[in-house]
Amino acid sequence: MYWSKSFIYTAKKAPAEAESISHKLMLRTSMIKMLISGVYSYLPFGLRVLDNINKIIREEMNASGAQELLLPALQPIEIWQKTKRDEQLGEVMIRFQDRRGRKLCLGPTHEEVITELVSRYVQSYRDLPVILYQIQTKFRDELRPRFGIVRSCEFFMKDAYSFDKDIEGLNKIYDRMYEAYENIFRRCGLNFLSIKADPGVIGGDISHEFLVPAESGEDVVYKCSGCGHFQGEQEAETKLCPHCKKNMIKVNALEVGHVFKLGTKYSDVFNLKYLDESGKENPVIMGCYGIGISRLIPAIIEQNNDKDGIIWPKEVAPYDVLVLPVNITDKDIFDSSKKVYEVLKKKKIKAILDDRDLRAGIKFKDADLLGIPLIVTIGAKFLKDKKLEIKSRRTKEVKFFDIDQIDKVIRDAK
Amino acid sequence: MYWSKSFIYTAKKAPAEAESISHKLMLRTSMIKMLISGVYSYLPFGLRVLDNINKIIREEMNASGAQELLLPALQPIEIWQKTKRDEQLGEVMIRFQDRRGRKLCLGPTHEEVITELVSRYVQSYRDLPVILYQIQTKFRDELRPRFGIVRSCEFFMKDAYSFDKDIEGLNKIYDRMYEAYENIFRRCGLNFLSIKADPGVIGGDISHEFLVPAESGEDVVYKCSGCGHFQGEQEAETKLCPHCKKNMIKVNALEVGHVFKLGTKYSDVFNLKYLDESGKENPVIMGCYGIGISRLIPAIIEQNNDKDGIIWPKEVAPYDVLVLPVNITDKDIFDSSKKVYEVLKKKKIKAILDDRDLRAGIKFKDADLLGIPLIVTIGAKFLKDKKLEIKSRRTKEVKFFDIDQIDKVIRDAK
Repeated sequence: MYWSKSFIYTAKKAPAEAESISHKLMLRTSMIKMLISGVYSYLPFGLRVLDNINKIIREEMNASGAQELLLPALQPIEIWQKTKRDEQLGEVMIRFQDRRGRKLCLGPTHEEVITELVSRYVQSYRDLPVILYQIQTKFRDELRPRFGIVRSCEFFMKDAYSFDKDIEGLNKIYDRMYEAYENIFRRCGLNFLSIKADPGVIGGDISHEFLVPAESGEDVVYKCSGCGHFQGEQEAETKLCPHCKKNMIKVNALEVGHVFKLGTKYSDVFNLKYLDESGKENPVIMGCYGIGISRLIPAIIEQNNDKDGIIWPKEVAPYDVLVLPVNITDKDIFDSSKKVYEVLKKKKIKAILDDRDLRAGIKFKDADLLGIPLIVTIGAKFLKDKKLEIKSRRTKEVKFFDIDQIDKVIRDAK
Repeated sequence: MYWSKSFIYTAKKAPAEAESISHKLMLRTSMIKMLISGVYSYLPFGLRVLDNINKIIREEMNASGAQELLLPALQPIEIWQKTKRDEQLGEVMIRFQDRRGRKLCLGPTHEEVITELVSRYVQSYRDLPVILYQIQTKFRDELRPRFGIVRSCEFFMKDAYSFDKDIEGLNKIYDRMYEAYENIFRRCGLNFLSIKADPGVIGGDISHEFLVPAESGEDVVYKCSGCGHFQGEQEAETKLCPHCKKNMIKVNALEVGHVFKLGTKYSDVFNLKYLDESGKENPVIMGCYGIGISRLIPAIIEQNNDKDGIIWPKEVAPYDVLVLPVNITDKDIFDSSKKVYEVLKKKKIKAILDDRDLRAGIKFKDADLLGIPLIVTIGAKFLKDKKLEIKSRRTKEVKFFDIDQIDKVIRDAK
C-alpha cells in the first residue's frame, strides 16, 4: 500500500473526549471513528488489526477441534423467557417488535440459540463431543459507553460452546479451551492472567476470567512492585509477592476472556439429550467460552506503546514494514524506495510505502505513531551502500541489512 | 475433517416449507438452520461456502484498489432524515429507541454513514480518488421472507462506495467495479447478465443490475430457446435471439449485484467537498456498489445441481475432495483412506474423510448430495492397484490417478 492512496490519516492530538491512551492513539492513527457515543466504525488501519486478531483466534480455535458457524443477531424473546434470562438481562438487551408483531431482541450472547440449534441435530453419543464457535457482532444498550471500543454498544466477540457426554468430557474441553486462550493472548502480545470468577448471568458452577492489566480496565488485579508478577484479588490476600516478597500494588485490568462450565443449565431447558451406548437418555453437558475481540485492540495498545505512539506486537501489526523515503522529490531515493517496496510485496511481506511529499521529520514522527514494527529508511546512505537501514520500533535499535535478509529480520524482530 | 467429528448432517428430504431447490438442498446438507421465519444460522458446512465467496470478493475488490473497512449496524435516525430516506425506507428499516432516548435504526445500507465519515477526512484533491468497501450484516423488517436466505431479515452484503473529483473519475471507477463484479460472479461459477436498471431509493442517474437466472428469483430475464443466451427485458424487445434468431423465453432471475452512479446526492447533504488544485471548493462525486452475498449461495446452487444434489463450482466448494472408504470396518481400507487423507492435508488440499460406519451406497448418495467436486473411492481396487479412483461430481466421469497427480486433477477439474 502506498500511504498517499491509503485511508490512513494521522493527527497530532486526539479529541478532548478521548480518555485513555489506547483511545487517543486509535483516534490519532485513524483506526476507528465514532458515529455516535458507543458506536464506532473500523477504518482500514484498524480493521487490519482486527483481522489479524481474528486470524489468530480462528487458528487456535480450529486447532483445538472447534468448528466455526455463524448465528443470527436477531433472536426471538421467547427463548430468553425460557431460561429466565430475559429478566436478568433487563434493559441491557436491545428489544423491538417487528411489523408482524414478533418480539425480537439483538442477542448479547447465544447460549439459548446454540442449545436450541444443537438439540435439532445431536441425538446419540456418537454425535459428541462437539465444539462450535462464532466470531460475531454483539449489541448492548450501554448506558455509559467508555474508552472508545472498550465499552461500546456494538462490538465483536468470539463465543464458543461445547457439548459432551459427561463432566470428564467437559473438563477436558475446558482445559483445551483454556490452553487455546493462553495461546491467543500470548500471540496477541499481551501480558495476562486468569482468575477464578463469578459465573454471573451466564451461569454454571465454575468459571475463569482472563484479565489484561490496562489503564482502561474496570477490574482490579495486583502487580508486584518488585518483579512485576500479576495476581488476582483472591490469590493476593497475603499481599506479598510469592516470588520476591515485595509489596503488591492494585492496578486496573480489562476482562478480555471468560470461560464457563455450564453443566446442564441450558440443555435442561431446551431438552438437549443424547442416547448413550446402552440406549439411556442423558442430558448433554455444556461449557461456553468468550473472548471480547474488540477490546483486545485497546488492551494490546495499552500494553504496547510509548510517548511516541503505538508499538504493535508482530502478529497483530497492520503492516510488517514501513518503507520511508526521506525525500520523494529526489528521484533516486523515491525509485529505490519503490523497488524495495516491490521486493517486499513479492515476498508477501505486508509493507506500506510512505510516498507523501512531507519533511522527513514529520514522516519519522508518523512512523513512530503508527507503530509498524520495522521502519526502513531510504536516503543518501542507502543509495551509496545499498544496505537497508532498519529501525525496530520497539527497541529503537537501528541496524543495516541486505534486502535478502529481510525475512530473517522480520522473523527475529521483537 | 473427519465426517464423524464434523457438524455435517444429511437428510433424505427437506421440510415441507422449503420451496426452491436451493432452499431444499441447503437444509438437506445442514448448511443453514432457521431460527425464526427469515432468520437463519449458518452451520459449518454453509459457512465454508460463505467464507470462500467472501475471499473471492475481497481479492477482486482489493485488486480494484478498494480498501476494506467496517461500519456499524447501529445508526442514528437523524442521518436518514437528512437525506429524506427515513420516510422512503419506511417500515422496512428496523428502528428503536435506546435507554438514553436516542432514536436508532439498524442500517439497511450505509450511504449516509460513509459520506459523513469520509467528510471528516477528505479535504483536498490529493485525498481522491478513494474506494471503501465492507462485508457486513444488514437488517430488514421483511414482511414475507422467502426461499431461505434469498429474502431474509438478516443477511450479508458487500457494499462499496467511491469518491472522486469529477464524472470522468467516477466513470473510470464504475467501469473498474463493473469488471470486478464480472470476475467475482464468474469465479463463483455463475451464469449472469447485467442490465440498465432503475436506481430506486439509492438514487443517482445511472445504475446497472447484475442478475442470475434462477428459479427463486423475483426478476425476469429472457433466455434463448436455442443457444441459451440471456438478455434483459429491454434488450429482448424484438424477442428473437440476436445470435441464433430462436425465440426468447421468460425465466426468473435473482438480483445479486447493483452498481450506481450517485453523483452528488449524498455529498451535497453531508457537505462532502474537496479543494481542487486551484484552491476552489467542489462537491465530491460518488458511486456505490452492492453485492447480495447471502443470496449468492442459493444462486450458485440453483445453477449448479442435479437430481442427486449440489455440484459446487471449484472456487466456492466447501471442500476440494471427499475421501470415501467403502467400508471402514475393513482395516486395510480404512488405514489407506486415512493415509490418503493425510497426504491431501499435507498438500493443503481441503479434504473431508467420510469415516462413518455406513453402507457404501448411503455414503455415495451423501457424497452426491454434498456436491464436493472430487470423490475419491477407496476400496479393494485401491488396495490392489494403489491408484486413486476419482469421480468428478459434475461430469460423473471416473478416472484413476497416482496420488501425486492430485494437484493437477484438482486444477483441471470442471
